[in-house]
Amino acid sequence: MLKYSVSLDLVFHALADPTRRTLVERLTRGPASVTELAEPLHMTMSAVMQHLAVLETSGLVRTEKCGRVRTCSIERAPLKKAEEWISKRRAGWERRLDRLGNYLAEHTRDEEKS
Amino acid sequence: MLKYSVSLDLVFHALADPTRRTLVERLTRGPASVTELAEPLHMTMSAVMQHLAVLETSGLVRTEKCGRVRTCSIERAPLKKAEEWISKRRAGWERRLDRLGNYLAEHTRDEEKS
Repeated sequence: MLKYSVSLDLVFHALADPTRRTLVERLTRGPASVTELAEPLHMTMSAVMQHLAVLETSGLVRTEKCGRVRTCSIERAPLKKAEEWISKRRAGWERRLDRLGNYLAEHTRDEEKS
Repeated sequence: MLKYSVSLDLVFHALADPTRRTLVERLTRGPASVTELAEPLHMTMSAVMQHLAVLETSGLVRTEKCGRVRTCSIERAPLKKAEEWISKRRAGWERRLDRLGNYLAEHTRDEEKS
């Protein structure tokens, strides 16, 4: 459960980078240590930590330190909120197209009758 | 139909700003001129044009000039691609939770038997 409200600005900003999307994708398959996350990325640990900091600030990723190991996991709420924002816009757009389609269909029938 | 491939970097970057999301939201209700889009925003026309340029670069918005009026409309593909990217990650995450739930349920039954 998130203790703060999700900022769509921060979530979309976090997702606007291919490395950060790769990290999110990896973490949807299960929690991982920072070392595990860094391994396939071919970049400095400092760069990986910076990307993780952006993801953590957005709320998409939660990190917990246990001894010397920092484990990262995904948070559901921000991803869900971003998805819902887009879905609602797309649904609104499609309703408009449906109405336009119906109008054109009726208009065509009226034209054929006259 | 888009003549170029959708860049998720550009789409998510475009959506990471509340004014640009307001513009997208307005355009899902139908095409609008730049003047109509600017009216409720209480910012300079130059600022609105900059936001529209970011949306146009991302592919989310298409603008067409007819005489002195520039009309903006929404493009479906980039919004759909962003939604699909998030949906797939969320689905992967939920499948993992289901598997974890099943494992825990089986483990609990085994514990009860022994």
